[in-house]
Parts: sequence; C-alpha cells; structure tokens
Amino acid sequence: MTEEIGVGMVGHAFMGAVHSQAWRNVHRFFDVPLTPRLAAVGGRDAARTKEAAAKYGWAAAETDWRALVDRDDVHLVDICTPGDTHAEIAIAALAAGKHVLCEKPLANTVEEAEAMTAAAEEAARRGVRSMVAFNYRRVPAIALARKLVADGRLGDVRHVRAVYLQDWLSDPESPMTWRLRREKAGSGALGDLGAHIVDAAQFVTGSLVTGVSATLETFVPERPDGDGRAAVTVDDAAVFLARFSSGALGTFEATRYALGRKNAMRLEVNGSRGSLAFDFESMNELSVFEADGPEAGFRRVLVTEPDHPYVGAWWPPGHLLGYEHTFTHEAADFLTAIGDGADPAPSFADGLRVQRVLAAVEESAERQSTWTTIGGTR
Amino acid sequence: MTEEIGVGMVGHAFMGAVHSQAWRNVHRFFDVPLTPRLAAVGGRDAARTKEAAAKYGWAAAETDWRALVDRDDVHLVDICTPGDTHAEIAIAALAAGKHVLCEKPLANTVEEAEAMTAAAEEAARRGVRSMVAFNYRRVPAIALARKLVADGRLGDVRHVRAVYLQDWLSDPESPMTWRLRREKAGSGALGDLGAHIVDAAQFVTGSLVTGVSATLETFVPERPDGDGRAAVTVDDAAVFLARFSSGALGTFEATRYALGRKNAMRLEVNGSRGSLAFDFESMNELSVFEADGPEAGFRRVLVTEPDHPYVGAWWPPGHLLGYEHTFTHEAADFLTAIGDGADPAPSFADGLRVQRVLAAVEESAERQSTWTTIGGTR
Amino acid sequence: MTEEIGVGMVGHAFMGAVHSQAWRNVHRFFDVPLTPRLAAVGGRDAARTKEAAAKYGWAAAETDWRALVDRDDVHLVDICTPGDTHAEIAIAALAAGKHVLCEKPLANTVEEAEAMTAAAEEAARRGVRSMVAFNYRRVPAIALARKLVADGRLGDVRHVRAVYLQDWLSDPESPMTWRLRREKAGSGALGDLGAHIVDAAQFVTGSLVTGVSATLETFVPERPDGDGRAAVTVDDAAVFLARFSSGALGTFEATRYALGRKNAMRLEVNGSRGSLAFDFESMNELSVFEADGPEAGFRRVLVTEPDHPYVGAWWPPGHLLGYEHTFTHEAADFLTAIGDGADPAPSFADGLRVQRVLAAVEESAERQSTWTTIGGTR
Amino acid sequence: MTEEIGVGMVGHAFMGAVHSQAWRNVHRFFDVPLTPRLAAVGGRDAARTKEAAAKYGWAAAETDWRALVDRDDVHLVDICTPGDTHAEIAIAALAAGKHVLCEKPLANTVEEAEAMTAAAEEAARRGVRSMVAFNYRRVPAIALARKLVADGRLGDVRHVRAVYLQDWLSDPESPMTWRLRREKAGSGALGDLGAHIVDAAQFVTGSLVTGVSATLETFVPERPDGDGRAAVTVDDAAVFLARFSSGALGTFEATRYALGRKNAMRLEVNGSRGSLAFDFESMNELSVFEADGPEAGFRRVLVTEPDHPYVGAWWPPGHLLGYEHTFTHEAADFLTAIGDGADPAPSFADGLRVQRVLAAVEESAERQSTWTTIGGTR
Repeated sequence: MTEEIGVGMVGHAFMGAVHSQAWRNVHRFFDVPLTPRLAAVGGRDAARTKEAAAKYGWAAAETDWRALVDRDDVHLVDICTPGDTHAEIAIAALAAGKHVLCEKPLANTVEEAEAMTAAAEEAARRGVRSMVAFNYRRVPAIALARKLVADGRLGDVRHVRAVYLQDWLSDPESPMTWRLRREKAGSGALGDLGAHIVDAAQFVTGSLVTGVSATLETFVPERPDGDGRAAVTVDDAAVFLARFSSGALGTFEATRYALGRKNAMRLEVNGSRGSLAFDFESMNELSVFEADGPEAGFRRVLVTEPDHPYVGAWWPPGHLLGYEHTFTHEAADFLTAIGDGADPAPSFADGLRVQRVLAAVEESAERQSTWTTIGGTR
Repeated sequence: MTEEIGVGMVGHAFMGAVHSQAWRNVHRFFDVPLTPRLAAVGGRDAARTKEAAAKYGWAAAETDWRALVDRDDVHLVDICTPGDTHAEIAIAALAAGKHVLCEKPLANTVEEAEAMTAAAEEAARRGVRSMVAFNYRRVPAIALARKLVADGRLGDVRHVRAVYLQDWLSDPESPMTWRLRREKAGSGALGDLGAHIVDAAQFVTGSLVTGVSATLETFVPERPDGDGRAAVTVDDAAVFLARFSSGALGTFEATRYALGRKNAMRLEVNGSRGSLAFDFESMNELSVFEADGPEAGFRRVLVTEPDHPYVGAWWPPGHLLGYEHTFTHEAADFLTAIGDGADPAPSFADGLRVQRVLAAVEESAERQSTWTTIGGTR
Repeated sequence: MTEEIGVGMVGHAFMGAVHSQAWRNVHRFFDVPLTPRLAAVGGRDAARTKEAAAKYGWAAAETDWRALVDRDDVHLVDICTPGDTHAEIAIAALAAGKHVLCEKPLANTVEEAEAMTAAAEEAARRGVRSMVAFNYRRVPAIALARKLVADGRLGDVRHVRAVYLQDWLSDPESPMTWRLRREKAGSGALGDLGAHIVDAAQFVTGSLVTGVSATLETFVPERPDGDGRAAVTVDDAAVFLARFSSGALGTFEATRYALGRKNAMRLEVNGSRGSLAFDFESMNELSVFEADGPEAGFRRVLVTEPDHPYVGAWWPPGHLLGYEHTFTHEAADFLTAIGDGADPAPSFADGLRVQRVLAAVEESAERQSTWTTIGGTR
Repeated sequence: MTEEIGVGMVGHAFMGAVHSQAWRNVHRFFDVPLTPRLAAVGGRDAARTKEAAAKYGWAAAETDWRALVDRDDVHLVDICTPGDTHAEIAIAALAAGKHVLCEKPLANTVEEAEAMTAAAEEAARRGVRSMVAFNYRRVPAIALARKLVADGRLGDVRHVRAVYLQDWLSDPESPMTWRLRREKAGSGALGDLGAHIVDAAQFVTGSLVTGVSATLETFVPERPDGDGRAAVTVDDAAVFLARFSSGALGTFEATRYALGRKNAMRLEVNGSRGSLAFDFESMNELSVFEADGPEAGFRRVLVTEPDHPYVGAWWPPGHLLGYEHTFTHEAADFLTAIGDGADPAPSFADGLRVQRVLAAVEESAERQSTWTTIGGTR
C-alpha cells in the first residue's frame, strides 16, 4: 500500500459523483504513487452534504469550502462547483499548499483564468500541482488519436471538424437551471460543451486555435422557473470557424438542441496522409483512415487492446469502458504527477488558453462574426 | 409510345456520360409524356465527340454548340460544359425556343446567373422551360427528407449542418485541371461542392440562406501542369456559418482534402420535434429521429419502399439505387414539366439564389469573415 | 461498333426488367466484343408481352418460347422464367445452337440440373456457351472479396456465416404467389435466397460445401388466394450448418420473415490472417480486417475506386452503383466469354453444385437434421 | 447505512477483479438493502491471494476455500473459479447457510448442475439464496430487449440468431491455457461463450431451447505449453441450429477464431411485429425495428435514458456504461433478492437448463448433428 493523500472535494452533484467514483477506485487499477483517502466533501446544505458523504464514501462533510481547504487531512482539493466559484477556491487552496484539480471550464472569465494561472505557476514553484479537468483527454480513443497525429500518421493536418451535440433543451418548456444563468455558468453551450471540443481539438492535433469567426444563438429566451419564467442569459448554441497554428481550418459547433443526439462529442481530423474520426456516443471506437492503396478505408479500431492508452489496467479486448473511466484515468494521471513531482497536463495555462478561445468566440459574435484572433496565444 | 422530344447535349465528359444514361433510359421506367430522342451531342474535338456519340448513343455529333442549338431535331438543350459557357449557351438556346437543362452551378458569376434567370423567365412566358441540374434533390432519401420537414415531422428547424467532403486533391502532386482555374470553373470546392449542399439544405428545409460568415483556403497554391507548374486560382476548401430565413443556424463545409471521404455529401437537420441525417456515401438511407419516448432513436430508413419518392419505378425494397439514378429522376421530372406545361424546379431563379450565397461567401471571406447578407434574397 | 448479337429473353417480370436494362446498356460502359440487339421477348400473355416489349425496348414479342428460340435473329436466349421451365427451355436452346443465360436457381431438381449441365457441356464442345445468373458474383464488393481470399490476404478460412434476410412474408395475410408453390418454384426461401448465399460463399472462399445439417420451416401454412386460401408448399425459412472442402465451418440462413431486413444478403468470412464482411443493403462497401497491430480494425472499404472490379467502367470514387449494375456486369462477362470463345462462369455445372447443396439441405431436414454429404461434389 | 453482509470470494483472476469492483461500489449507486463488506478472498497461492486482497480491497485472504466458506464474517460466497470446482464449493456453501453467487457456466457437467440445483432448491427452503452469474442479462440494452419482447412489441418471435465471436485463439501459436483443457473448463467456446448466448436468447425471448443440431470443431489440436506442446481437449468453435418452445428457429455460433471480432456477443430477434438486434461491442445500443409504415427502420436506441433498466442509477443520457457495470447490476439484484427474501434470477435451475442445452449440443455433434432434444426441459 502506498502513502495516502487526503482528498477534499467541493461540490457533490453530477461531477462530484463521478469524481468520487474515481477517487474510490483509482488505486485498484492503476499503480499510483499515492492512495487517495476521501477525507471530506463540501457543500452548502448540511443535510445534503452529509448524505452525499455517506453515499459516495467521504469521511467528513463540510459546509464551508474554506474549512474544507484548511483541514489538515486534506492535501488535494477537487473543485466540482459551478464556474463562478472556481477562481476563489482554487487560488485559496493553492495558497494553502493544496494540490488542485479544477473542473472545466477553468473559470467564467479570462481575468479569473489569468489569476488562477498565475497562482498555479507560483504554486508549482513550491511543488504544489494543479490540473484542469478536461476529462475527454482521458478517453483511450482520444489519447490514441493524439498519439497517431504526434507520430505523423496523419501527415499535415488540414481540416478539423468538431461538434458537441446534446438535446436536453430541445423542449422549450424544460425548466430553468443554473447552467442557463450567465452569472453562475459564464456561458451556455459554449463553455459547457464548446470548451471540451476546443481542448480536445488542440490536444489531438497538438496545435492551437489562433482565430475564430463566430455566431451565438439563444433559441428559447425564457424558461419556466418556479411559478413564473426566467430569462435565459447564456447562449443555447455556438458555431464558429477557426484557424489553427498549424494552418488547419476548423469548424466547431456546440449545442443543446440537436434532437436525438445525447452526448455526441465528435471530432474529425483530415491530414495529408490520414484521417481520424471519433464520436463519444461510441467512445470505445476510433475511426482511422490511412492512404494505402485501393483497399483503404476507415478502420473501426476498437480501442480496447492492452497496448492502447489506459486500457491495460482494465479488461480484455472488446470489454468496453464507460464515461466514468475517463475520470479514473484523470485521477491516476494527477496522482502520478504529484508523486513524480511533475507538472500535470492539462495545466491551468491550458485552461486559460481555452478560455481565451471562448472569449474570442463571444467577441466575434458581438462584432458580426468578424475574424477575431486569440489574445495572448502562446 | 409517347411523342418524341429531340435532345441535344453540349459536353460529353463525366456529366455528359450520366446525362446520356438518363436520356436513354428514363422512359423505360417512368411514364413520361415525352420520349427523349438522343439527337445530337456537342463537343469541340470532332473525333472525340463522334466517339462519344457512338459510345453513348447519340445520333449525331456537332463541334459547334450553336449548330447543335439550331438543329431542327433538337427541342431540348442539355448543358454539361464547364460553368464559363453556361450563360451564353443557355440564353441562346432559350432564345431559339429550346427547353434548357443546365448543369450546376448555374453560372460562374451572379451577373451571368441574373441574365440567365431573366432569359428563363422571359422564355417561360413563351412556354419554353428551363431547369438547373441540382441532381441531389432527386436522391430518394433527400426528397423524403424534404417531405418529412414539409409535413411538420421535425417541428421548427434549429440546426443545419452540411458538409461535402471529397479527397481527390489531398496529394499535392496530383495534376492541374480546369476545375482549379477560376476563369473556367468560377470557384473551386465552393461552386462544385458547396453549391450542392446550399441547394440541398434550402430544398430540404424549405428555407433560404439569408447571411453567411466565411473563410476560404487554398492549401496547395500550384500544381504540376505539363512540364511545369500552374497556379491554382480557386479555393480548395470553403467553410461558412449561415442563417436561414426560418431562423435556423447552419454550418457548411466543402473540401476536396478530406482524406478518406470520397463523396460524403452529408446533411443533418435538427428540429424541435425531430431530426434527420443523410450521407451520400450511403445514399439509399435516411436517418430519422422522432421524439417519442424512451425507445426513441435514429431510425435507419432504407429509402427503397415503393411509397418513397421515385422508388416505385424501380426494384423491390432493399434493392439499391445508385448515383446515376438521380439523373434519370431529374430527366423524368423535366420531361413531365415540359409535357404538363409547368415550370420545373429547381428553376434558374433557384440557381441564382445559390449563386448569390456563393458570392456572399466569397465576399465575407475577403472581409475577414464579417457577416454578409445575401443580396436580393427573395 | 462491334458485331451485333441477337438476344431473346423469356419472361418479363422483375428479372426480365433488370435483364432488359443490362442488355440495353452494357455496351455503353463496357468494351464488349458483341453488341446486344434486343430481338424478342417471350411471355404467355400476348398483350402483356407486347407491352413489355415496348416498355423495355424489345423489337418483337413472342408468346411461345419455342418460337422465340427458333428465331434466326436470336443467338442468345436469356431465361427469366420460374424454375420449373428452365430445363426444357435451356436444353432446347442449347440444342438449337443458342447461347443460354439462365436465371438461378438453375432448376427445381438435381435431375433437371444434371440434364442441363450435360446439355451445356455437350453444347460447349460446339462453341455454344451457357451461364447461370448468380448476379451477386458481380457486386464489385463481392468480386473484391473473392480476390482478397484468392490472394491469401485472409490466410486459411475457418468460418463462413451467410444469411439472406428478407421480410416480405412477415404478414400472414400477404397473398399467395407462385413463389410459394413447390411445383413452380421448387422450394421457397431455400432456392430463392439460399441458392445465392451458397453460391456466393463458395465463390468468395474458392471452396465447396461438402456437407450440411439443416432445418426447414413453414411459419404460415396457408395464405389468402383469390376468395379462399391456398396451401404454402415450400419452406418459409431454411437454416443449415455446413462444412467446406477447405475445412471451414459455415452457418447459413435464408428467410423471408426477418422483419425490417429488406435484402440483407450478408456474408462474413474469418481466416487466420484476416476477415471480411458484406451486407447487400450497403452493397458498395466491404468490411476488411487484417491483423496488423494494435490499430487494426475492420476497414469500411468503399468499393468505388477505378481499380476495383467492374468499377472503372462507371463513375468517380464515392458515386455509388446499385442493384441493377450487377446484371450489366453479368451481361458484360457473358458477352466477353462468347466473344472470346471461352467458357463463362458460373457454369451450369456450378449451378448444379448449388442445386446439390439445396437438395442435401432438404434431405437433412427430412432426416432430423442428420449430417448429409453433397452427392457428387467435384 | 444499511446492514452489512460479509462477502467471501473464491478466485481472483479476471472474474474476481470485476466482481470485486461490483462489491466495492454497488451500494454507492443502488439502494440495496444490504451493504457488502469485502470479508475475504480465496486462492491457492498465499502470496498472490494476499496481493489480490490488497489490490481489490478484501479484508482477509484464505488459501483454503473451505476455511473461507466457514468464516463467521462470510455470509455470501461468490464463486469465480474454473467450472470444475463450482459444484463442490457451491454445495458446501449452501449447506453452511451461505448465499451463493456462482460464475457461469454453472458446472462442467449436467450431473454436477443437477446436484447444485437440488442443493439450491433445498437451501431456498431455508432462506438461503443462490444465483448464477449470467451477467449479460444485466446489460441495460439486453434487459430492455427482454422487456420489449415481454410487452408484445415484437409479436410472435420467429427467428433468433445469436453469435459470440472472439478471436484470441486465431494465432495457432498462442499458448495453452486452462480454458483449453476439458478437465478444468468442461468445454471450450461452447461453455465459455455459447452458455452466454443460450441464456441471453432464452432470457430475451422468454422461451426455452427444446432441441438442437450441432457441430463442434477444434481448429488447432495442440498448442505451445512450456517447452513442449499440449493437446487441446475442448472445442474451438461450436455451431448449432435450435428450436425454441415458442416455435422460433434459432442459429447459434460460439468461436474464438473470428479474427477482428473482440467480444461480439450478438443477438438478433425477428418477430411478426418487430425485430431487435444487439452487439456487445456497442453495448450501450439496441437496434429496434417496429413495422409502422414507409418510414420504418431499425432505430439505434442509445440505452442510456433514466427510464431504461439500471440506467437511472448512473449518469445522464449519452454518458456510456461499460462492461464492469453489468456485474454491479448483478450484485444489486442479488443483494435486493436476499434482502427481500425472494428467489433471485437466474437461478441454478436456469443454469442447469443452459447446461442441458450445452450437453445436447455435444451429444448432437457426436451423433452426426442429428436433432437432439433437451432432456428434462421444463
């Protein structure tokens, strides 16, 4: 048994549930240098937080995130709250010498993300690690996709098309939620879904988005809220064209109105020697094309072989993994980086880069879609 | 046997071959009011035109398109030449009282398309008919898609995503062709492929594109040409965002660099009650989603039932049709309109509308992707 | 223009319609040594036969097949009638020195097929050619499949699974037809569909079925017929296990009760080095697996490249072919064999082999599925 | 927190790993009446068993299964060993008043399975529960399939086609394992894979296999084993025809030589009103066809809605589950049955029924595939 590391998690909704599963099980499958101890979970409502602690296996419940951060038995703070609280919690935790895993998008504004990145870089000099939770990097098929591009199997990348399609807002009468309020969520489909595909596209191609032309839309401007109706203050859908530092052309679309598509996070990349395509609704598969004669064709690679990224820790070929495993992989990578004294990826700086793309999208949309370069791309 | 109508076809390359197959066979399957007689084929090179006449079954060969248009036994002129000649031939033929079927895109410029449309409208008053050859409207699955939208099965349309992906230019050393010269082709992927998806998207949704934000790209600026290299003067790829008159958001992409995609003309439409998806590489199928409870899902409709558009003329269910059949359907529709004294669709005015979208795409691309409305949308 | 060959076709229903399309068009796409002339079509009903002649482009109509066979302008007899008449017509035509193309299954009994094969072999010595119309051999994807196996790309074949699924009898109230009467059709799904997959499996693997264990079923024993009901005297479905001369194991299923499957003629072959899978409902595709490392996977080969069998005569990559093209390919192959003075394949002997497999299936089904070897396998 | 139940697991290889994951996490997602306590794991090798205990979270390690069964803190025995030991362990545990979950196939022989069933029925009268671990019943898509059939959505079932395709023995030089020794494994692909599809077919259709006609094959008769070679004494592949008590026809195939298929457990059912199809390699999907007009088609139902079986405990729609979750569902069902004092399904009697089908398959294969009825079908 390796040394324990105390984890404190803030937030216990959907993200809290999957993160808990990851912390509870990661060391059962991966040879991590630190074994997580589920020290405390934080939430505003005492009763519900206590219930969450019992359900998900946390030793203690805290109603004040500052108390949670300050606990001696918490060495790693996992932030699973809405975006408006990320900066404050992360900066405080890093200052307190706690490693930080922060859900995406990193923040609600570029300014917050900049402050967080500065704090993270300062903390790193003290050996305190931070990571932003772009869990889709840990889908084995996406990790394999990156490897194929990095190995030159696709040649020069020319096209990227990325969509993230959900449909849970298709019904105009589905009720208001915090995800539709700008002050809580920062943005709508853009930050929730668009952030994932911007990060995934950059991760897979190893190239950065340098400029965008964008349009945003709010199809349903107000929704039922209690007895009345509340204004939706974020985008329902975001579409944008993009250029990558490599010269590749990109198209992006994030929406919660693609009826029938439940979690269709899709990425297609075309290069001069090969292509690949991915759809999260078939997350164990990667389509790969390599130009090699008349019997070429897109191969359906079942990414379940022991040689594939992360897969060796799990089951035999053809025995599929699910959504939650991406978080287990994320936890393994973070614990390994902490144990190795290395900076984990994606860093807060990576999260900031994505935030800048999102900000450029909003700016372009406000300026009649005029091309907008990403400030401070590095 | 119905009355004969003499057809004269200008051009005998790829389009000429499929059009010939349509004219030779249409009356064997459809109860058309006029039976085509393959009177004459036109081409510049006497020997090759004669050879084409023999191969495809045309009674005569002409090397001057004016001579072909003037023949007494030609009542219908079918224009299968590059775009730079469409206007001159079509206007002359209409003036001579000949019905005209013209390949897409209607012309190389909006001005030409306007002149052609004016000529067509004038000719229609004399009972002379004209049609632009957007053959993909005659794919049974696409015709069915339009019907489903028109019947309200999708509710309000919110999203359209249309791509037309080919890969025959992926190799930078593949040689120069007339399709890569602006003076012949007008534009590149935009006019060749983009025109199809703009028309198909408008046709299926029953809604017009009102504005665009666009980017064009030429990945390979010069290509082998004889002993030297020639400049590519058209776009290799076109990507654009769009708005429809219905309020729907659209994304479009046309490229000849999507390695592994051979003829992936794809269209997905999401509405408030249903969705549909089509891929020409599986052209006998339409994916249809209707929101109706927990066992909802995209249905793979094999569009080969006798009730489906055009299909009753052919084979039993499950016995597929191919690319060429879209032209046979087109010929049937045109002959029927002529016989009925009705204006066929898509009209030259429809072709002009598409041309204006293409022009707006080019204009937006030149103006840093700034949103550009479609001039004269009606 | 090459020399003409007069074709006389007996029968003008579904098969007659597709064969007509092939004879009318084959020389427009293939460099055949003989140009078919549609001399005469035969049928019992004078009015309907005349109508078919006009519709499909036959110069004359005959109501007596003997008269058709005897016509001086008929050099090739194409038999498109139900199986009970194949032997008599084919033997007479061969005796009269006419080349014979005969629809499948070759005959209704092994005895008839033996007599036809003997007649064909005798005729071949006089330069008179014969072929049985297993048109699925001419699907480009199936021809490619055979080539891959023959080239050793699959290694030793171990498994064959072949099904032919239709659903047009699923409704117990769909009416009686000649296809459900033993005296006309010989058998039911077995001869109509099973014959195709037995031939295709043998063709693709280059190996013969040597024994079977079988069960037959008639789900609906009588059906509406005019004012009353008539007994179904053939099988509705046939399932059988098989061994191939190579040692491979096979499973076969032919049915008209697989609701939702319209023409799912499917074949999967697994070898020691590779595998392949085909489904006629996606007839332009072949799935190919080759064991070559961790990124192996079934490739979706779009069989539309100019190098693929038959495809060079048609359209660019990605522009699909349909069901009818298999008959055009068949006509091209037959005309080429006649012109070259070569014996075409599949021969009547090949048809007899399939017939013997069908007979063994029926025999095994009558003997409690006991293993039954194929008599006279060669 | 509910009352605890002490679990003792015998065996800690592949099955032990997934069962451990289920026992560790089931109560985090399902409201089970008993909370499992991982009391002890059993294995022959002391060091390796201790290591497994640490890795998977078991409190103690035992090297004698009898000692494990006798522990006071073990109330439930989970048997994850090869088939030759199932009977002895299960009967002893039931006699000791311990609930038993036993991996499939229930036993290596019908005689053993009969003894186990008798012991289970006797124990049930004492309130001691037993279940056989056909985990594929707990795939949400398969549970949904059963529901659709039970609700009459498919009408009368006519066809079942079930295959279980793997490829890990394709290479003749892959080494010997206990799974290829009759004395350990009972049979080869038949018991390992065939048992799953027989159970799944019976479960989904609600109908029993009453007779079979079968062939078995051992493609590679000996394999590398240490420095020499050892004889393979089980089948490499099993194919069989079947009848169901409902009158439906079935075809079955189990093999480890289907190159490229990793875990393709596939089931297709055709009824008079609908059809369904499943493939474990896309385990979150069920294809459903219902005959309802010209736009009918197989629907790809993503079985991830909260209303679908088991799914409500997990993630939002479109967030996939994996292989291991079937075991978590199995544990939940077993714990619920124990808590409710109800007999869980599938019972040992259900396991015995499957065993009898497997025995009939072997008997038929030995008797030239002659039809063999299932002894004692009830």
